[in-house]
Amino acid sequence: MASKLKERKRTPVSHKVIEKRRRDRINRCLNELGKTVPMALAKQSSGKLEKAEILEMTVQYLRALHSADFPRGREKDTHKKIFMTMLRK
Amino acid sequence: MASKLKERKRTPVSHKVIEKRRRDRINRCLNELGKTVPMALAKQSSGKLEKAEILEMTVQYLRALHSADFPRGREKDTHKKIFMTMLRK
Repeated sequence: MASKLKERKRTPVSHKVIEKRRRDRINRCLNELGKTVPMALAKQSSGKLEKAEILEMTVQYLRALHSADFPRGREKDTHKKIFMTMLRK
Repeated sequence: MASKLKERKRTPVSHKVIEKRRRDRINRCLNELGKTVPMALAKQSSGKLEKAEILEMTVQYLRALHSADFPRGREKDTHKKIFMTMLRK
């Protein structure tokens, strides 16, 4: 009985802690994206951006980077190189 | 009095709708990032990724793209070009 009570007491706390860590990870990334994506960085001077806005700008930026006018062969090589480096980490 | 009641009735519904739209925008972007970021795309074959994971991989990927071994001048030109195109939209 005592151990059951102890368990019941601990569960909400650890759930709260896990949930906070999850939100912190997400918010850290959104902060970083806000500083990395040029459009988001520029718009932040006129007020804080919503999460959805930062993400939409990130998607737009990646699309633009992928379709940018790199010499085709070079673009493929670079993406492959980056991907292989990340897989090795 | 009647109009106040009407207002009170409507508010939670429209809040729910607005909140749903916001979540939908975020989820659409996360889906798109999951398909665009190579590391996320590769990992999804072994199960659904958490939001935080997709975002961390996106940050990692953008960092890698930014520090990739492009000829310096060309990289700057391309980013500037993309940024200017996005601003014009």
